Amino acid sequence: MTVGVSILVDVSGVRDSRFHTRDTWEKILPILIEQGGMRQLHFSSHQFSTVLGEEEQVGGTTAFALLAESHISVHTWPEFDKIVIDIFTCGETSEAERMVAYLEEHIPHDKMNIIRIDRGT
Amino acid sequence: MTVGVSILVDVSGVRDSRFHTRDTWEKILPILIEQGGMRQLHFSSHQFSTVLGEEEQVGGTTAFALLAESHISVHTWPEFDKIVIDIFTCGETSEAERMVAYLEEHIPHDKMNIIRIDRGT
Repeated sequence: MTVGVSILVDVSGVRDSRFHTRDTWEKILPILIEQGGMRQLHFSSHQFSTVLGEEEQVGGTTAFALLAESHISVHTWPEFDKIVIDIFTCGETSEAERMVAYLEEHIPHDKMNIIRIDRGT
Repeated sequence: MTVGVSILVDVSGVRDSRFHTRDTWEKILPILIEQGGMRQLHFSSHQFSTVLGEEEQVGGTTAFALLAESHISVHTWPEFDKIVIDIFTCGETSEAERMVAYLEEHIPHDKMNIIRIDRGT
C-alpha cells in the first residue's frame, strides 16, 4: 500500500531570470495549486543573495507550499539556469499531473526531467 | 552536472503515536538540522484532525523546514503507521546521511526504505 506519489521535476536551460525570483514564484505557486485543485495551509519563500567578488549578484529562490494534500517545493539556481521542483501528493495523481503540464508549458526551458515515485512503500 | 541530492525516506510500522504528532516533530527537526550542520530559514507544521464516524481522532502531522542548504519535509499517517520524509540538500551529502542515520536510530519502526536521487540532471 502506498500513501502518495512524489513527482520530481528537474528543469534545465531556464535563462529567463524572472523564473529565478521570489516574486515570480509567489505568483506561480498559487496558480499551480489552483490548477491541481489543492488547498494551501502555509507558504514560505526566500531569495538568496550571492556575493561574487566585489559584485553582489542576486542568487536563487526557494519556495515552499504546505498543502492539505501534501507539498510543493521549488529551488532555483540562476548561475546554472536550473530549477528543481518537487510535488508530493496524497490526492489524485491526475491533478498533480495537471500541475506538471502547467510548469512544462509556462517555464521557458531546454529540458525537463520528470521522475515519479510511489511513497510509503 | 547536478545541483543536489534528494533522499526519500519511507518508514513503515511506526506504531508509537508520539511520532505522528506535531509536538514531536517540532522537537526532532531542529535536532536533525543540527546533526546535518544545516541552517534553518523557515519552519511550518500542521496537525490534521480526522473525523471517523462520531468520534474525532487525531490525524497525521506535516512539518517542513526550509534550509539554507535546501529543505526537509515530513508527512505522517498514524492510520497506516507510516511516515514519509524528504531531505533535499545541495550541501555535503555526508551530512545529509547523518540525518538519515539519526532518523533510523530514533524512530521505532519495522522497515525503512531509502531512495537517493541526484537532482538538476
